[in-house]
Amino acid sequence: MIDTLALQQRFVSIRENKAFEIFVISIIVVSALVIGAKTYTINAQVELVFKILDISITLFFLAEIIIRMIADHSFKKFFSKGWNVFDFIIVTASLIPFDESEMALLGRLLRILRVLRLVSIIPELRVLLNAFVKAIPRMGYVSLLMFIFFYIYAAMGSIFFSQINPVLWGNITISMLTLFRIATFEDWTDVMYETMEVYPLSWIFYLTFIFIVAFVFLNMMIGIVLEVLQREHEQFDRESGEGEAGEVHWIREHTESMEHRLERMEKMLINLQNSDKPQSDRN
Amino acid sequence: MIDTLALQQRFVSIRENKAFEIFVISIIVVSALVIGAKTYTINAQVELVFKILDISITLFFLAEIIIRMIADHSFKKFFSKGWNVFDFIIVTASLIPFDESEMALLGRLLRILRVLRLVSIIPELRVLLNAFVKAIPRMGYVSLLMFIFFYIYAAMGSIFFSQINPVLWGNITISMLTLFRIATFEDWTDVMYETMEVYPLSWIFYLTFIFIVAFVFLNMMIGIVLEVLQREHEQFDRESGEGEAGEVHWIREHTESMEHRLERMEKMLINLQNSDKPQSDRN
Amino acid sequence: MIDTLALQQRFVSIRENKAFEIFVISIIVVSALVIGAKTYTINAQVELVFKILDISITLFFLAEIIIRMIADHSFKKFFSKGWNVFDFIIVTASLIPFDESEMALLGRLLRILRVLRLVSIIPELRVLLNAFVKAIPRMGYVSLLMFIFFYIYAAMGSIFFSQINPVLWGNITISMLTLFRIATFEDWTDVMYETMEVYPLSWIFYLTFIFIVAFVFLNMMIGIVLEVLQREHEQFDRESGEGEAGEVHWIREHTESMEHRLERMEKMLINLQNSDKPQSDRN
Amino acid sequence: MIDTLALQQRFVSIRENKAFEIFVISIIVVSALVIGAKTYTINAQVELVFKILDISITLFFLAEIIIRMIADHSFKKFFSKGWNVFDFIIVTASLIPFDESEMALLGRLLRILRVLRLVSIIPELRVLLNAFVKAIPRMGYVSLLMFIFFYIYAAMGSIFFSQINPVLWGNITISMLTLFRIATFEDWTDVMYETMEVYPLSWIFYLTFIFIVAFVFLNMMIGIVLEVLQREHEQFDRESGEGEAGEVHWIREHTESMEHRLERMEKMLINLQNSDKPQSDRN
Repeated sequence: MIDTLALQQRFVSIRENKAFEIFVISIIVVSALVIGAKTYTINAQVELVFKILDISITLFFLAEIIIRMIADHSFKKFFSKGWNVFDFIIVTASLIPFDESEMALLGRLLRILRVLRLVSIIPELRVLLNAFVKAIPRMGYVSLLMFIFFYIYAAMGSIFFSQINPVLWGNITISMLTLFRIATFEDWTDVMYETMEVYPLSWIFYLTFIFIVAFVFLNMMIGIVLEVLQREHEQFDRESGEGEAGEVHWIREHTESMEHRLERMEKMLINLQNSDKPQSDRN
Repeated sequence: MIDTLALQQRFVSIRENKAFEIFVISIIVVSALVIGAKTYTINAQVELVFKILDISITLFFLAEIIIRMIADHSFKKFFSKGWNVFDFIIVTASLIPFDESEMALLGRLLRILRVLRLVSIIPELRVLLNAFVKAIPRMGYVSLLMFIFFYIYAAMGSIFFSQINPVLWGNITISMLTLFRIATFEDWTDVMYETMEVYPLSWIFYLTFIFIVAFVFLNMMIGIVLEVLQREHEQFDRESGEGEAGEVHWIREHTESMEHRLERMEKMLINLQNSDKPQSDRN
Repeated sequence: MIDTLALQQRFVSIRENKAFEIFVISIIVVSALVIGAKTYTINAQVELVFKILDISITLFFLAEIIIRMIADHSFKKFFSKGWNVFDFIIVTASLIPFDESEMALLGRLLRILRVLRLVSIIPELRVLLNAFVKAIPRMGYVSLLMFIFFYIYAAMGSIFFSQINPVLWGNITISMLTLFRIATFEDWTDVMYETMEVYPLSWIFYLTFIFIVAFVFLNMMIGIVLEVLQREHEQFDRESGEGEAGEVHWIREHTESMEHRLERMEKMLINLQNSDKPQSDRN
Repeated sequence: MIDTLALQQRFVSIRENKAFEIFVISIIVVSALVIGAKTYTINAQVELVFKILDISITLFFLAEIIIRMIADHSFKKFFSKGWNVFDFIIVTASLIPFDESEMALLGRLLRILRVLRLVSIIPELRVLLNAFVKAIPRMGYVSLLMFIFFYIYAAMGSIFFSQINPVLWGNITISMLTLFRIATFEDWTDVMYETMEVYPLSWIFYLTFIFIVAFVFLNMMIGIVLEVLQREHEQFDRESGEGEAGEVHWIREHTESMEHRLERMEKMLINLQNSDKPQSDRN
């Protein structure tokens, strides 16, 4: 009979092993390369090798996630970490067999996502993605505001210009795509010159749109990303005691202790004065 | 007879109601969707439904703003808040009936602006737009400086290049539009190569323009938006006592109280010394 | 005989007059509008009006700068301010008559520059331009580094690609212009695909160039402009005592005075101890 | 017999000589100009002059680096400075004679890199490049994350779109180049409209890609460069005692000395109290 506790212990040691981690990373890279190589025209033999490799990789990932599951004592503990959920979804999704020609594309698509496991396994990339995730709520509101402006301009665009060029302004969805194109400055003058033949003042439409979206909102995006990065940085400084934020934190704490000391000293002085007074009086 | 005060009280409670707020937001979204849907080709029946919906939405917005007006005791109080004025203009503008074919477009245009009411009803968007409005004065001067450079380059452009291509450089207005296009890097080399055939050194004109406008001024814009965001942020930190700015503010206040304490202590010490001196003298 | 001192006094009062300043600004704007209007096709009568206006404006500017010269007591004092030199050059340059057809263009060009006098007369624009001028030395070094990379890539480009397309890569000057175009992402793929037909690996040339120039250097430019803006801002904060930098400055100064007080207090305590010791000894 | 120590001393004085430095800089500039001039069509005589110039410059650089080597006492000391290694590689690389027609291009390529010696000789450029090098590790991780996203999108692109346009999506390498083009907004709509004819929803592919890569990652790049610049700046401030970071550092140090003084003072007060107590008791 197998001793489950000993097994668990062993799996924990495997998981923590640096060499194992590097091995997992190289398997992910190989998996990515196989996916990339498949996009080239390859002969039947190589394709067979790739098929075998693919199955082995899938099985390896399955084994690896099971090891990590057993290493954690309970399913609850395993799934409490967001990155584990992330890994689990990627691994199980690539397990589903899509052999019929129609679904084969979807199967390949799911297998590509295994490259994302690199993000969950390299700590520095995890930190970067965390910073990005933290910026999402604030970026969400900027995006919402941007979307409202897009919507208003798209509605105006399709009301006025749909007769001129239905391919670009046919309905509100197409108009929004056209506006996104204008926001990236991609051949936007061609779009403008076309409508200016009918509405000579329509350049106002384009210029205000570019000014609001491309200049103001994109700057806000930059501002938010920078702020999130700076905040992370300040947090790190405060904890390590380095940098300006760290020094300010040090001063704050020491000012606090100085205050307590001064309070004590003032009390002593008051005592001294009180004990001195009667003494001098007595004298 | 209706008790006006009770009615007012009731309207205040409606206005403050969270469910009512969500209901208003969903009406705005429906209103936006109706406007969007109209840009698709629709049959007569659906159009009738949309017409009825449109009238109901207009009436609902009217009712909602009247409720908020009555909830505030006086017109003066209601119109003292900028966002109320904003809402009032949007709602009344969409009341005006534009049934003649010519003005119908304008009527639809005004109805699109109702989507902007989302900004006035969602607090986070209001904060964002406020930050944007705060950046306007400083951005205004940068824009003015940019406009002066545009004007000078446009005048030069139309003096030298109007013969070469009147479509792009015919007069100063067209030239400024062409320069805006160059500032967005949109097919600017085509414009340049055309004039370089006559004036081989005209690349200096384009390169200095791009360098000044696209690099210097856009960076200034980014700088100003970032500074406004950072300032808002610092202000928030100072009030909450968190972050670097918050800690600095805390230190400042405590340094002040420490100074007062030290002043008191020094006085006591001087007293002690004075009372001690004569004592030692007497001894 | 005219009293020169009284005249000078009077000119100083004219120069300081707010109404006079607004008048000068409006003359500059009119001057700009005349230059702009001339780019449209105009009939002979209007042209005559413009000619008269132009002469009057030139004379007015001359008069205005003479007033300011006399208001300052000496030429040395007048020319010691950079902005006065700036104005003087612009005004005298537009005095030179260019009536021959060949030089007429240059004359018009010099007259356009009068618009720049708006910058020297509006304080906020002067502040902006000063900030820009302060950023120049540091931006100069970034530009020099950028130029070196441009030069190296241009030399490589004209060595390898001059045979493929002499219009784009004929010599090092043309190559640098082509590289500038690539740095603005303007139809750069067309340039790349052309050379990739001969050198399939030439995408490395373009990608490394875009990565170094467009991403790294432009970011450095943004960084420097932001830093200059932030520094100006910090300086302002320190002087006004507001904001984080202002509070830090306040703390610094008060920490200094607290230190002096503590030094005094320590001395008193030592005195007390010394006077106390013998006393207790004697006792 | 030559006195090696005296020679060394002399070489040190040559190396430190300001005039010599300017001479070296001008030789580098001449070397760059020769390389640039060669890209123009030149007659045989001038070519001969260039050949002689080229050899002289190569010899001069060799002499200069030998002087600097001897000036430093040991090879170890010379090669311990990164910039010396940089210079040494550039100089020796251009020594290799490539006279056969095939390798001549490589020889010219290596000679272009001599322009980079400007960077190693001008201190301000060295500082800039150092800042850039410091940003590399952090930018490396952002680039890796970006590469992963590129890879996933390229794999998806070549799976779905390779049939539609093999020139753009033929295999994963070509797809990545196409995606890089899309990230620079270069005619990306043409690429999109082509695939939208087959997959009408493929705009989701392009929009998510642009949003993730062009907006998020580029902002991160800007953020990192800004942070590195700011950190350098803070470091400089701290050392010079100027600016906000400098003042905070000053406060930190003086708070530390104030604490020590307060500690001493508290001890004295305790002594006073102790000596006072028994005294009053005795009294």
